[in-house]
Amino acid sequence: MSQLRRDPITGRWIIVNYEKIIKPNEFSFEKIVKSKDTAKCPFCPGNEKLTPPEIVAHRNAGLPNTPGWTIRVVPNKFPALESKGDLEKRGLGVFDRMNGVGTHEVIIDIPEHARDVADISDEQAEEIIRSYVSRSNDLKKDPRFKYILIFRNYGKSAGASLEHPHSQLIALPIVPKRVNEELHSAQEYFNYKDRCVFCDILIQELGDKERIVAENEHFLCFAPFVSRFPYEMWIMPKKHESNFDNLGKEEVKPLGLILRDSLRKLKKLLNDPPYNYIIHTSPINGHEKDFYHWHMEIMPKLQNVAGFEWGSGFYVNPIPPELAAKNLAE
Amino acid sequence: MSQLRRDPITGRWIIVNYEKIIKPNEFSFEKIVKSKDTAKCPFCPGNEKLTPPEIVAHRNAGLPNTPGWTIRVVPNKFPALESKGDLEKRGLGVFDRMNGVGTHEVIIDIPEHARDVADISDEQAEEIIRSYVSRSNDLKKDPRFKYILIFRNYGKSAGASLEHPHSQLIALPIVPKRVNEELHSAQEYFNYKDRCVFCDILIQELGDKERIVAENEHFLCFAPFVSRFPYEMWIMPKKHESNFDNLGKEEVKPLGLILRDSLRKLKKLLNDPPYNYIIHTSPINGHEKDFYHWHMEIMPKLQNVAGFEWGSGFYVNPIPPELAAKNLAE
Repeated sequence: MSQLRRDPITGRWIIVNYEKIIKPNEFSFEKIVKSKDTAKCPFCPGNEKLTPPEIVAHRNAGLPNTPGWTIRVVPNKFPALESKGDLEKRGLGVFDRMNGVGTHEVIIDIPEHARDVADISDEQAEEIIRSYVSRSNDLKKDPRFKYILIFRNYGKSAGASLEHPHSQLIALPIVPKRVNEELHSAQEYFNYKDRCVFCDILIQELGDKERIVAENEHFLCFAPFVSRFPYEMWIMPKKHESNFDNLGKEEVKPLGLILRDSLRKLKKLLNDPPYNYIIHTSPINGHEKDFYHWHMEIMPKLQNVAGFEWGSGFYVNPIPPELAAKNLAE
Repeated sequence: MSQLRRDPITGRWIIVNYEKIIKPNEFSFEKIVKSKDTAKCPFCPGNEKLTPPEIVAHRNAGLPNTPGWTIRVVPNKFPALESKGDLEKRGLGVFDRMNGVGTHEVIIDIPEHARDVADISDEQAEEIIRSYVSRSNDLKKDPRFKYILIFRNYGKSAGASLEHPHSQLIALPIVPKRVNEELHSAQEYFNYKDRCVFCDILIQELGDKERIVAENEHFLCFAPFVSRFPYEMWIMPKKHESNFDNLGKEEVKPLGLILRDSLRKLKKLLNDPPYNYIIHTSPINGHEKDFYHWHMEIMPKLQNVAGFEWGSGFYVNPIPPELAAKNLAE
């Protein structure tokens, strides 16, 4: 028998199919093969000239745009949005359009081409989070932007076009639809209960103990009750906070570690699957919403999304989240 | 420069990236290879015993569950939802759950294993649509259901697990999120303008002539102004109608033909890519909404969906819909 579950954050339903449970080694996804030929990798030390000039880098030695860095941020060479120009909004009959103003940056997470983020050192994990926070704080100075989205694609079938570990950051002139949906429900919940829906979920997950993957003083990693994807994981700060860019100094390392450790569990259990992760945070520049609660969503790409999912926004998940958490935590 | 475009139906924005236009022969997707060994195909004539007993079939000869059929409808052997049982709704702290009550049917479109729906005869095209309408009308007699979703997955990377041409139908005890979003916006538009947003789009597309792929007396196929995916196409009835299951007798064949012809254009231009199509219609059983306008969405799977899309609900489309329509129509 299957079970329908409803997410209080987005109103989304999923179908947990208990009939067709797939074993961790039975998923068929495109294996990630890392090339040993890094001569042409634009993200490898020594090839700095293959990227646009760096925006910022942490380095132990060397001049800008030369080796010696431990993390490096560059503009995306093929940006989805461009940083020059004013926002021009225009109606076109029933439609609306706007100039593609925004920013698209690449964060080259580590100098080592073949090392996975699942296997980085504690210091590297910390440095990645620190760069996310500092880029967010720098970019929000631009009043044209309403939202900053940080994400990582790992593996070709998760959309990564280069294999060297990297994250991306896009600053947007509008608040994206998915975030608006979460904001809307979080506001309705707050209006009704005078409480944060994410905080309530956190309390319930900590009490139920059924879906916990990892935990430290500041963060919880769990398989959401309404997981769209097999082995989906969310990382949430235990303390209520709307904006990721307010991350406390004492939280940087714990977040880096729980993220790396969760990715390591995923890699071990499922034999290195492709995944995406994203950070959902409150809008910026006067659009902050106190009732929101930032979090990370880790979405393994273990199966293809089909017509039913595209047509309905309903997801069929063949792995009950309780089982996913148990398998990952072990 | 890229352009942001907003969809009045869902409030979704997309980014049309004019910098990175991909030629029709430059997409890299998993090629669809059809096996010649059909001995074990559960959808081939002669193998009727490999499926659950048929619900209905059109046949020129033969007994039920034997060869002689031209189209055949069977229960899905691995259903996402099951038809037995009552709806039991229950809260679970902050969450909601419900029994997985529903129906999941497979429509075996044609007897020929290796023939694409893009290449079927006029009669076969008509018969597929007729079966969609008749299954919808049969299933809506069950008062537990609020929605019927018809869809087709073509190719493994679009989620098809069997290669023999087939469509699927799922009856649901709730209205899915994606449909609710469209209903919500269509209602707001109607409240504001006293007109159907889909009708207004239709009029604009017919006037602009820039995004038309195909047209007949009853239907328009066009590349939507806000196409999420490269070469996305929508088929819309020219006459306002909320419910697909009200399809007029005179509309059955024209719909079958414009669907087949659009799929044929896609196959020719892009060398047989994977795709999904879905039918979006109004809810049923007292939940019908007059301001809604049913339509089909054809979504080619030419590139992988990545973190940015999952995190934002924003889609980056490297093919301006105006160019897509021009290439497809030629």
